[in-house]
Amino acid sequence: MSLWEIFFSELVGTFMLTLLGCGVVANVTLRDTLGNSGGWLLINFGWGIAVFIGASIAAPSGAHINPAVTVGLAANGQVEWAQTPVYFLAQVIGGCLGGIACWAAYKLQFDQNPDNANTRGIFCTGPTIRNAPWNVVTEFIGTFVLVLWIVLNPGIQTTAGGEIEFNNSALGYAAVMFVVVGIGNSLGGPTGYAINPARDLGPRIAYAILPIPGKGSAEWDYAWIPIVGPLLGGLVAGLLGLALPSI
Amino acid sequence: MSLWEIFFSELVGTFMLTLLGCGVVANVTLRDTLGNSGGWLLINFGWGIAVFIGASIAAPSGAHINPAVTVGLAANGQVEWAQTPVYFLAQVIGGCLGGIACWAAYKLQFDQNPDNANTRGIFCTGPTIRNAPWNVVTEFIGTFVLVLWIVLNPGIQTTAGGEIEFNNSALGYAAVMFVVVGIGNSLGGPTGYAINPARDLGPRIAYAILPIPGKGSAEWDYAWIPIVGPLLGGLVAGLLGLALPSI
Amino acid sequence: MSLWEIFFSELVGTFMLTLLGCGVVANVTLRDTLGNSGGWLLINFGWGIAVFIGASIAAPSGAHINPAVTVGLAANGQVEWAQTPVYFLAQVIGGCLGGIACWAAYKLQFDQNPDNANTRGIFCTGPTIRNAPWNVVTEFIGTFVLVLWIVLNPGIQTTAGGEIEFNNSALGYAAVMFVVVGIGNSLGGPTGYAINPARDLGPRIAYAILPIPGKGSAEWDYAWIPIVGPLLGGLVAGLLGLALPSI
Amino acid sequence: MSLWEIFFSELVGTFMLTLLGCGVVANVTLRDTLGNSGGWLLINFGWGIAVFIGASIAAPSGAHINPAVTVGLAANGQVEWAQTPVYFLAQVIGGCLGGIACWAAYKLQFDQNPDNANTRGIFCTGPTIRNAPWNVVTEFIGTFVLVLWIVLNPGIQTTAGGEIEFNNSALGYAAVMFVVVGIGNSLGGPTGYAINPARDLGPRIAYAILPIPGKGSAEWDYAWIPIVGPLLGGLVAGLLGLALPSI
Repeated sequence: MSLWEIFFSELVGTFMLTLLGCGVVANVTLRDTLGNSGGWLLINFGWGIAVFIGASIAAPSGAHINPAVTVGLAANGQVEWAQTPVYFLAQVIGGCLGGIACWAAYKLQFDQNPDNANTRGIFCTGPTIRNAPWNVVTEFIGTFVLVLWIVLNPGIQTTAGGEIEFNNSALGYAAVMFVVVGIGNSLGGPTGYAINPARDLGPRIAYAILPIPGKGSAEWDYAWIPIVGPLLGGLVAGLLGLALPSI
Repeated sequence: MSLWEIFFSELVGTFMLTLLGCGVVANVTLRDTLGNSGGWLLINFGWGIAVFIGASIAAPSGAHINPAVTVGLAANGQVEWAQTPVYFLAQVIGGCLGGIACWAAYKLQFDQNPDNANTRGIFCTGPTIRNAPWNVVTEFIGTFVLVLWIVLNPGIQTTAGGEIEFNNSALGYAAVMFVVVGIGNSLGGPTGYAINPARDLGPRIAYAILPIPGKGSAEWDYAWIPIVGPLLGGLVAGLLGLALPSI
Repeated sequence: MSLWEIFFSELVGTFMLTLLGCGVVANVTLRDTLGNSGGWLLINFGWGIAVFIGASIAAPSGAHINPAVTVGLAANGQVEWAQTPVYFLAQVIGGCLGGIACWAAYKLQFDQNPDNANTRGIFCTGPTIRNAPWNVVTEFIGTFVLVLWIVLNPGIQTTAGGEIEFNNSALGYAAVMFVVVGIGNSLGGPTGYAINPARDLGPRIAYAILPIPGKGSAEWDYAWIPIVGPLLGGLVAGLLGLALPSI
Repeated sequence: MSLWEIFFSELVGTFMLTLLGCGVVANVTLRDTLGNSGGWLLINFGWGIAVFIGASIAAPSGAHINPAVTVGLAANGQVEWAQTPVYFLAQVIGGCLGGIACWAAYKLQFDQNPDNANTRGIFCTGPTIRNAPWNVVTEFIGTFVLVLWIVLNPGIQTTAGGEIEFNNSALGYAAVMFVVVGIGNSLGGPTGYAINPARDLGPRIAYAILPIPGKGSAEWDYAWIPIVGPLLGGLVAGLLGLALPSI
């Protein structure tokens, strides 16, 4: 598979991820929506299915749609390190474009929302209690669970040469959906489970540039935490996966 | 497969879709039901499973049960354009009959509902904020996600000759269920995610003719939006699918 | 497969069905439980998973666990009519024993519940608005959806000779789970979706004989509706299934 | 498979189980979280997905992650009794470590929680009404359902020689997830469904030693019930499974 094909596959997949993921938070957060105040389980199914759709569309490139997964699979020997910058770039660009498309779908609701100071939470994550080391710990643990599960489950991976061994089924990525719903349910409480640098950085850039009336700060001083925590979690899980037997 | 077989398969499938889809909204909306005020996630699982049941029953004809899917698959080269009018007609008739059956299941509840002015929302969609271009954008985006996912996932399609290549399993269409739940969770907030002209037009006709005491307007001036937005979204997704690699 | 094997398989499967199905309603209804007031989606997932577990355990006998399914499959030519009384008897006895086991699991909660006059709803169904013909219609429609889906989906059936053709997978009956959740979501609002005579009659007998302090009437005058409506729905679906193409 | 491989596989699987399972209760219980007051269905999906992730990671050792499952499979003849102490030890240690990791993920929330007297419920189970015999009955019934389902479903088991026959698919353990969600929905109301001695004892030890400010008692006098009830339930189900036909 060529680098261009990887690039477009990951870009479209991560676009779908943040379009749908940011979308569910917009639906719950903004006032004039049918899903207003829909609750945490709704949000988690929203993000879980966003991963399902994004991953099944990005299957040709291995369905990473997440730099922490790319790092974990590279550390695990399933992706070449030389290809990882292409993955990263496509993921962040796709994540940014998905955030913009989410804004378009909810444009009227943004314009009529009584107070947009807090709409940053639609696009990117933030902690309920700010504390850099422990916020990193929480993001590390959540991403560790995700990536360890991925590297130990065959049939959902890219080989080192970029070829896919994949169960050719529409339900193939439903398992990842449940894993993400579970991480949101169980470990999303303190920081909003970025567990994916592109899912956080891409839409944060979108929030910074979109014409949302009365919007708040993009909180760039927090932006490094959902990058560093997930990358470390993915790296450690990818390495640990070499020591554990897979299914 | 003959045109008559396509017609009956799509009719029964779309009948199941709107019977169950309108049913969940009736359950949440009408006063004397066990599901009253059941919430947005309940509605989305209701519509998602409605698609699952309708699609698995309409599998012999390719499980479109949605003119936007038919258009997308035709643009993608998987259905002959000459057959599409048969699909459209069956889908709208089935959708109308499903709405009537939903009314029969909830007949006592309609008759005793204190105010039926707003029961149109049980049958067809409407926006929280009325604005034709942006409402079209929202419906376009939701349908684009649905149809792009379908055209990129093999094993869930009709071939151009009308023959099915399908994973012969009861769970085969569960994946589409999750996709629809996800679109509802994430993109249904502004317009109620018709994402299917027959799902909207068919039951809208049913609402116009059913003997519901004190019912409101069928809002025919909005009816073109959940037709045009989804058809455009399906068309663009079907064409884009030709350019992207499938799984 | 011998009649005794059919009898025990259906008995244990229907026991599991009503143990878990009545259990979720007990959890939501009784005061001193962790699931008190858990909502309609919780109840529907409870019954859906009850069918999943009961059906997968009763797979050797075709996983009917429901006289309406037995009738539908007999009308469809997949079960011999001569065997159906064995199915019916096992299903009603299993349903009654499951209701008793549910009471045992919640015995302390029944004993300390402030008002048990309304606990009949834990064991058997009742309408929000009483009207025999329309209550029959609602039960007919819900069961029709269930049984038509079953007869059109191969891999989930008993052959006429009693041999099983079944996808040998732990997830095999997950599809039925979603169908039941969907019927509850969409068509359960007016009558509580018995859609299964044994699921209603068996636990109704259990309620009549169990030592629940201050319990109310078992409402035997309603008991024929969740028998007649589902049996008619199953019969019509089984016959219609002969005319429609299956997947 | 060597005893060391069994040990590590079960330890990591049970670690994942209690990290995610305790995590969802922390998310719902502690004040400064995004999932606060998320409800019983959220908790049940949390534990169900925790079992899914833990079981798929522990697949090489048969995915027990539960002494009651180990006992049931041993009684059923699928595991050698001589190996069971290795399973038990790994499960309790993994369960304790998972509880500690959960605390780390929510450390800031524990430290700022206004009243930690009741945080024991995040780690281990307790009854809504205390009564030893009936609490044992409830735990017995829930575990009986789980283990009977497991022993009757092939493709999800270890053979007596320690070799796995497993459907090599990422979705393989999703069925167990639904079973656990169902037991929580339906039978979790009275005692919080330990249905697993290691899931209760391991995190109870963690609670006893963790530096949670103002924490309450670990209630050791109750701790035997979620050990004895599940072990008896697993044993009886494993023996009964020998008499019933499997799928």
